[in-house]
Parts: sequence; structure tokens; C-alpha cells
Amino acid sequence: MQADHPSRRLFELLGMRKPVVQAPMAGVSTPAMAAAVSATGALGSLGLGAMQAEQAREAIRATRRLCDAPFNVNVFCHAPARRDPAVEKAWLRWLAPRFAEFGASAPAQLREIYASFVDDRRMLDMLLAERPAVVSFHFGLPGAPAIAALQAAGIRLMASVTDVREAELAVRAGVDVLVAQGIEAGGHRGVFDPGEPDQGLGVLALTRLLVRRFALPVIAAGGIMDGAGVAAVQALGAQAAQLGTAFVACPESAADPAYRAALLSEQALHTTLSAAISGRPARGLLNRMARLGQAADRPAIPAYPLAYDSAKALHTAAKARGEAGYGAQWAGQAAALARSLPAAQLVEQLERERLQALADLA
Amino acid sequence: MQADHPSRRLFELLGMRKPVVQAPMAGVSTPAMAAAVSATGALGSLGLGAMQAEQAREAIRATRRLCDAPFNVNVFCHAPARRDPAVEKAWLRWLAPRFAEFGASAPAQLREIYASFVDDRRMLDMLLAERPAVVSFHFGLPGAPAIAALQAAGIRLMASVTDVREAELAVRAGVDVLVAQGIEAGGHRGVFDPGEPDQGLGVLALTRLLVRRFALPVIAAGGIMDGAGVAAVQALGAQAAQLGTAFVACPESAADPAYRAALLSEQALHTTLSAAISGRPARGLLNRMARLGQAADRPAIPAYPLAYDSAKALHTAAKARGEAGYGAQWAGQAAALARSLPAAQLVEQLERERLQALADLA
Repeated sequence: MQADHPSRRLFELLGMRKPVVQAPMAGVSTPAMAAAVSATGALGSLGLGAMQAEQAREAIRATRRLCDAPFNVNVFCHAPARRDPAVEKAWLRWLAPRFAEFGASAPAQLREIYASFVDDRRMLDMLLAERPAVVSFHFGLPGAPAIAALQAAGIRLMASVTDVREAELAVRAGVDVLVAQGIEAGGHRGVFDPGEPDQGLGVLALTRLLVRRFALPVIAAGGIMDGAGVAAVQALGAQAAQLGTAFVACPESAADPAYRAALLSEQALHTTLSAAISGRPARGLLNRMARLGQAADRPAIPAYPLAYDSAKALHTAAKARGEAGYGAQWAGQAAALARSLPAAQLVEQLERERLQALADLA
Repeated sequence: MQADHPSRRLFELLGMRKPVVQAPMAGVSTPAMAAAVSATGALGSLGLGAMQAEQAREAIRATRRLCDAPFNVNVFCHAPARRDPAVEKAWLRWLAPRFAEFGASAPAQLREIYASFVDDRRMLDMLLAERPAVVSFHFGLPGAPAIAALQAAGIRLMASVTDVREAELAVRAGVDVLVAQGIEAGGHRGVFDPGEPDQGLGVLALTRLLVRRFALPVIAAGGIMDGAGVAAVQALGAQAAQLGTAFVACPESAADPAYRAALLSEQALHTTLSAAISGRPARGLLNRMARLGQAADRPAIPAYPLAYDSAKALHTAAKARGEAGYGAQWAGQAAALARSLPAAQLVEQLERERLQALADLA
């Protein structure tokens, strides 16, 4: 790579050699996946959003045992759930007949199954002790003291943003890299405040708005499935592309067989944003759970992650009776281009395709 | 350009030399704009959706007097409005206090102010007589006899599509070029059936899905404002980019001063899709009219183009009292990157930026 190549700054910051980030997919990415990706010179990631500090420490250590390249760990920075007993009760009452279909009962009450990093002191202490090369934030930002402590530990910081205002907040907080998450992206929308109107910016518009307005390196995310997509966001001035759905069907993924099969079928042509699964808008395949969220008689959805507790219970009950369509089958808008390759091979393939796309353009 | 350059096929089909299409913006584009753009070797367009056949003939002839290069004319192929007197009456009753604010009265009833090309025989006959080089369809496709007649007249056909299923219909109908309209795009969503759920595909995902699935040339549209955006969609395999918002503030545009000023202000950072202006979802600046569409007590919106009749009347009444925020100020998601340059200079600037983006990538 030339000394003045536009990706160079990001590459030096994060210790990368390829303009690809494997998205941190809580529940799907694994130490084996992150290590395989990072070993190629791309950036692998672990999603810690569904883990407690000790599990997260184990995942980081497991990844390190498999590779010595830098990798990224992602934490969720949502506002802790505001409890609303009436909403939760109505929700569980509405779900009861669905549980009954599978010979199960809805939980008696909802639990806040995942702590937010914004008030998880043990997770912060663990990160300061383990010092992963990169920590990325989703759903917002932690407080200034946590950011200062992570920086002082030599950790590089990235923040997922969905519009210019969120990017301004991230820049002001001192992160090193912006992850521009387009509306196309699978999984949870990273919007900071789900109570505000979502601008729904596509990745092309968002990336260009951020690159033109801010000096920080930008990683573009959303709907990118092949090397042509990576080349495209580089043309927009992004220094790398972040791909999630592209890695879901890799053998290193924790996705269950039904999720993989759905992703590799015609079902992948239809994704939708739904808050009914977790309590926060997230894009996934239009499966039974997503359709349930579209029901005309659906009551208000409990806040994240309360709704997730009931969705996971319903998925477990349905799956025990052979119905896999109630799972969180996150998928981006171009999921129909998914393929099943070992993660390292996928990265190499993306790089070949990217170079081919650039050669075609020259 | 090399003989095997990927844009060559499109260029030969449409007589272009630059990978840029100026979007056909009914009410905004003008013969002067289309001619200025086509004279550069890009493709200029006229939006005929708001014209009757004789006005459209005049616009085509006026464009020809200004340049002899090929240009595109766009027609709206919506299903003719289904009248619903109760909905229309409730709508006008709800709008009445807004008219009163400006010392005006709401119209007594709504008129179908624009005919659909699907049953406008005079428009078809005019096109067959005038033979513009290219005709493009929005909101769907005309019937097979109209398509066959246009093809027999040597006219190239393009169809705006928003998902794979619409693209399949367009390919089967025999169009020459697909215009991939992403959710980012300003103006009317081209969805064929507004009663069906809108997939809301971003331009990156949509373009890649179409390029990988169909052999036809693809023109990508939505949120593209500069040459880096043009290069990006070329990397995706699109043969050209279509830009609308980028041309709104050109001196050749019919946009009024308030619309231009809003587009070049911080207001451009917020766009929204609203059906309240015309009866069909369309993206524009979040102005007073768009906010009105978000009101909690808003009744059902009359079908396109019935609602447009009332919105235009309200805009006229408001503007007469100095309030410009009720106009149709269409704008795409990256509108904040708009600039005001003569159309030909803008095309040259886009080309310089595109070549710079490619050079940066090489």
C-alpha cells in the first residue's frame, strides 16, 4: 500500500492490512471467527453485548489463544431499560397464546437480561485489564470517564453512528473511528435514542455526509456483501467496510442451522426492521417473529432488552417443537448475496473481488 | 473509453458519453436543464408527469431547439386514483383550518390533476410522433401494447424499480435499462404498488442485487450528490448514476427561491418520506407540509394525485402570505451536499470528482 493511500491512517490506528471489518454480532460471532478474520489482516470482532464481564473476558482470551493480531470488541451503550409494569404485563398477556401453541407458558415477568456498558463497572474493569486493541460502541456512548480510561489504556475506540448529529457527539467524545451504519444493516439499529425520529439514512448518503464533514476515518456498514461493495464504500471515502450478514453462514459462526438455511434461501430477499424481538429496532429476515411484530393488535413493546427476554423464551419453546421461525435471524438488505465460506477464505475472496472491481473501473 | 468498459453498453444504447443522468424531476427540471446536461454527453431528462400531451410536446421541442443530443422523458405509470368521497371529504375538512390560517378556503373537492400514462392515449401518440431518444417509467409500467409501440418507434426504455420483484416485471416487459431507486432518493418512491409493504432498499444493496441478478444495464439513483458517489455506484456495477437533488439548485431549475434556499441551508440535513403531499410516499425536506403529514390526528390520505391537488392549493395560499414551507421541496438523503452551479458546470465537476475518486482508489 502506498504511503498516502487513504486507508493508511485507519490501518495504522487499528493494525489492519485489509479494508474489511467483520461486524461484532452478539450471539453469532465467535472467538474462532474473530481470530480467523484478524489473522488475514482484516479486523475481526467479538460482540460482548449479550455477555457478562467474566464471559467476555473468556471470549477475549479464547480469541487471543487463536491469533495474535488485533481485534475489536463491541459493547452496547443503551440507556438502561425503563420498567413499565403495565406495558410488560400486556405484552406477556398478548404473547401467551403464541407460547400455548408450542405447549409452553409465557414467562411470569420480564428480566433485564443484558446490562448496558454505561453502568457495567465490571465490564469496564475487565476491558482495562485485558486491553483488547479496539473497543467499539453501539446504541450510543459511555460516559467521559470510561472513554478516558479506555484511551489511557491504549485502546482505540470506534462508535457506530446513524446520522450527522450522532457523529458529532462521537467526535466530541473523542472516539478514533466512526462506523457509519446505514439503514441497510442487519441487526440492531445503532441509533442513540430510539425515542427520536430515525432518519433512516442509507449507507451511501451517510458515508458521504460523514466523510465530507469530519476528519476521522469512517468505516461503512450496511448491505455490503461482496468485494464490489467494499470498493464502492472506498470510493465514497470510507477507509474500510464492515460486513456482518456476509459472515453469518461461515462455519465459525454460532448461527443455528435454521438461520443459516433461511439466509441461503429465497427468504433472504425479504428483511424488515422490527422492535418486537428485542425492544429496539433491528433488521432481520421476515420470519414468524418479525411478522408477529407487524400484527395489527400488537400492544406497545417493552423497552430493550426486556422484550428480548420474552422473544428468546418463545424461540426456545417453538424450536423445541420444530419451529425455527421465532429466532432472531438478523440479516441486512442484501442478505440474498450471502454465501457459506470459512471466514478467512471469505476475506480473501472479498479482497479478490474488491481488486477486480477496482480494475474494472480503472 | 476502452472498448470493454462496463459503461459502454449503456452509453451505446442511450447515446451518452458520461455516466451521469440528470433525474427527470416533474416541476423542477426544464428544457434548459435537460439540454445543458445532454450537451455535455451526460443524459438530461424531462419529467412529463405533471403535463398534458401538448405541454409535453412543447417541452420536448423546446429541448430539441437547445441541443441535438439524446435526452430522456419520464412518464408516471400509477394506477389511476380510486376515488373515495368519504376519505376526500374528511381530508379537506382536516385541512380547512390550515387554509384558514392563510385567509383561504380548502377546495370544495379534489381533482385528479395528472393523468396516468397507462391510460393517456394522447401522451403515447405524442411520444410516438416526437420520438425522444429515451422514455422512462415511474410508479410501474405501461401495458404491453404501449411498450411495443415505443420500441417499434426506436425509443429506448428505462424503468425505475425499488426491489428485485419490480425489476423482474420490468425485465419481462422488455425495458432496456433498470433505474435502481434507493430509499435515499428525493421525490416520489417509484414503488409499483403503494398498497404493498415497501422494502425500503438502500441504493447500495439494491444496485448490487440487480447487477448480480440481471443482465440489463443498471443506473443507480438515491443520495448521490458528487463524483465520489458516481464512482461508488460504478464500483457496484451500475453503468451510470442518476442525480436529482444535485440539480435542484442549478440556475436552469424551476425550483422557487425558497426551495433553493432551504436546500442550501441546515434544513437539508433532515428529509422525510411523506405521502401527505401527493398521496404517494415521496422524500423531501422536513418542512411544514411534511410535518403536517406527521400530525397524530391526520386522517387517511386521498390517493395520488388527489392529495396533490389540496397540497398545491395550500402551498399557493401559504406562499401568498409569505410562508414557503408548504411546498413540495423534494430532496434526497444527502441533500446537505447540494450546491448551486449551472447544470453543465455541475456535470463537468461531477466528472472531475469521479476521476479523482478513482485515482485515489487506484
